[in-house]
Amino acid sequence: MTMMPLIEYDDASAEIRAVYDDIMRTRGTNWINNFWKALANNPPTLRRTWESIKEVMAPGALDPLTKELVYLAVSASNGCAYCIASHAAAAEKQGMTPEMLAELMAIVGMANETNSLANGYRIPVDERFEKLF
Amino acid sequence: MTMMPLIEYDDASAEIRAVYDDIMRTRGTNWINNFWKALANNPPTLRRTWESIKEVMAPGALDPLTKELVYLAVSASNGCAYCIASHAAAAEKQGMTPEMLAELMAIVGMANETNSLANGYRIPVDERFEKLF
Amino acid sequence: MTMMPLIEYDDASAEIRAVYDDIMRTRGTNWINNFWKALANNPPTLRRTWESIKEVMAPGALDPLTKELVYLAVSASNGCAYCIASHAAAAEKQGMTPEMLAELMAIVGMANETNSLANGYRIPVDERFEKLF
Amino acid sequence: MTMMPLIEYDDASAEIRAVYDDIMRTRGTNWINNFWKALANNPPTLRRTWESIKEVMAPGALDPLTKELVYLAVSASNGCAYCIASHAAAAEKQGMTPEMLAELMAIVGMANETNSLANGYRIPVDERFEKLF
Amino acid sequence: MTMMPLIEYDDASAEIRAVYDDIMRTRGTNWINNFWKALANNPPTLRRTWESIKEVMAPGALDPLTKELVYLAVSASNGCAYCIASHAAAAEKQGMTPEMLAELMAIVGMANETNSLANGYRIPVDERFEKLF
Amino acid sequence: MTMMPLIEYDDASAEIRAVYDDIMRTRGTNWINNFWKALANNPPTLRRTWESIKEVMAPGALDPLTKELVYLAVSASNGCAYCIASHAAAAEKQGMTPEMLAELMAIVGMANETNSLANGYRIPVDERFEKLF
Repeated sequence: MTMMPLIEYDDASAEIRAVYDDIMRTRGTNWINNFWKALANNPPTLRRTWESIKEVMAPGALDPLTKELVYLAVSASNGCAYCIASHAAAAEKQGMTPEMLAELMAIVGMANETNSLANGYRIPVDERFEKLF
Repeated sequence: MTMMPLIEYDDASAEIRAVYDDIMRTRGTNWINNFWKALANNPPTLRRTWESIKEVMAPGALDPLTKELVYLAVSASNGCAYCIASHAAAAEKQGMTPEMLAELMAIVGMANETNSLANGYRIPVDERFEKLF
Repeated sequence: MTMMPLIEYDDASAEIRAVYDDIMRTRGTNWINNFWKALANNPPTLRRTWESIKEVMAPGALDPLTKELVYLAVSASNGCAYCIASHAAAAEKQGMTPEMLAELMAIVGMANETNSLANGYRIPVDERFEKLF
Repeated sequence: MTMMPLIEYDDASAEIRAVYDDIMRTRGTNWINNFWKALANNPPTLRRTWESIKEVMAPGALDPLTKELVYLAVSASNGCAYCIASHAAAAEKQGMTPEMLAELMAIVGMANETNSLANGYRIPVDERFEKLF
Repeated sequence: MTMMPLIEYDDASAEIRAVYDDIMRTRGTNWINNFWKALANNPPTLRRTWESIKEVMAPGALDPLTKELVYLAVSASNGCAYCIASHAAAAEKQGMTPEMLAELMAIVGMANETNSLANGYRIPVDERFEKLF
Repeated sequence: MTMMPLIEYDDASAEIRAVYDDIMRTRGTNWINNFWKALANNPPTLRRTWESIKEVMAPGALDPLTKELVYLAVSASNGCAYCIASHAAAAEKQGMTPEMLAELMAIVGMANETNSLANGYRIPVDERFEKLF
């Protein structure tokens, strides 16, 4: 089904293996998921995307669970089956419970409903909302 | 710009005022934002949408700040200017800092990038991701 | 704001005027809206798009009002401000009332909510829904 | 494939069964489709979503067939396979013919084409379209 | 899986066969892909869509390979599996290499990232970008 | 209108100025557009996004004009006004003519039309399209 072959560790170049190793080390796992195996067809894209994800998802002002919940919510809203599945697994690993998932999905649903209503009615932004912080 | 007139409190029917009053009471504010004033053109939609939002955004397994962050993330991803502005204000009220907002937006950006890569490459879901909880 | 200049009737070539004339004749109006004035920068696109719209929106198994309601619903769902405004006007001309508009928008909102829930939960299609007609 | 187990009637709590019963009674059917079985993992979401759908899809200024056509059009435009399949079945039950479906899909296609053209060219809304009703 | 039966050449009316013949002649192939077999359920949609595609994809200011790359990029961004598969095949036929595909997908990913950032931050268009050509 | 203040060069930290300088040097310009001034509110996002864009848009298997055309096409399809304006300007600088822009937009429109038709009809991918390269 993939457009490009999935590149397994054993068949990977040293450049690709270096990224795979860093992924496994950072995540504390011993396997690589299909997303990276597909990106590996273009090593610069593999490296750049991984470096970006690693930086963006590192603990900061938002904790790792909140970060995964946000990632999952956007993926669910976009209807990306692969990203929903992989980030739901990642969120679960960070502590997401079934109750949290259900509440998250309910918000995703409501946000999509009110987004389409606000756009559909062409509602102007309230003056008070323009100034943040 | 709105397709329908914005219905102000002073011009509203008792049915509409009852919803407006509940919105202000629940939120601890003394004003109504344009979204509700537009929906008020159809009182059943106003009431139903408000009751749903009130239920979905009430504290539960996810705290109010996390809920607003998720709402904001989906709205930003969908590019709904009105909902971005109103939920950024709501998130700020719940404690969102500029650093949190910046990290949130970085995740929204990365999620949209990897969602399009996963869809674009038609990457199959890993077996291990299929079983959640 | 437009990327390309809007081409007015008086400045248009004979090829463009022929399309403008057909638009006004078909719609029973004496003016051209901005959409066509922008497309006129590329006469083949102008002609092709108008011929397609004319064919698709002609009365058939669906009546003209229903056709405009469907067009408006998709445009509202997509958040295209221009198309929302122009097709709301067209739908009103075909008999859309404020009540119809409110009900239409409520459906657009619910559809976006349940679409994101169905995608987000990755719900499999029921066997019974696979066979249509 | 679903992220959450599908909850069958026989395994459902009284709270869930009450909603299932109302769905079957309202629709005049004796089965429950997967969408509700997935939402049942969170009974408040199940109840709230069903009550909203029931209210929005009830006959009003728009007749039931037109309502289903609008729901189907939005779902097709969003590419939600589940909702396309379920609402095509619902629309057929309300009287949608193959000819109606074909005309509906042609409009969905044209709307997506012209939405992207209007957004892409950043076409300003005509003054005359700003005032509705 | 399709909502409508796929109409094979041998079962097609003369009107449908005329379009099928023109598709095969124009493309220098001897088979018809599923997209057209589905549209054939409504001959006017089949004919109109084919005529439009033929006109839009003909060599012009942009060469055929660039045209297919653009079509593929939009389809990947929209997550349309069918169109990704069919236009990747068409682009390959026009000379797209695996390196080109990888670079194309990297741009699709970045565009989706920065589109969501620009929308999410509600960034105003720079004065200098308003005047084109 | 922006959610965050736009950070001008004179008010920027050394870390931000280093990125601004590299943007101007790489592009051969002497000004910074709003997108970067908004991202500068979070220097790591500014730096990471710029490094990614610089890498992705550098000449490779695809030439710079083709890359900008693809970026513009995705942005137009997504309806991101800011990115449409900025990448149309970038594409023009690389040699895009009005005729190329018109053909590009026609393809964006057709792709959105056929994407929604392929998704709406739930058309299965042809066997022959599954194997690429």
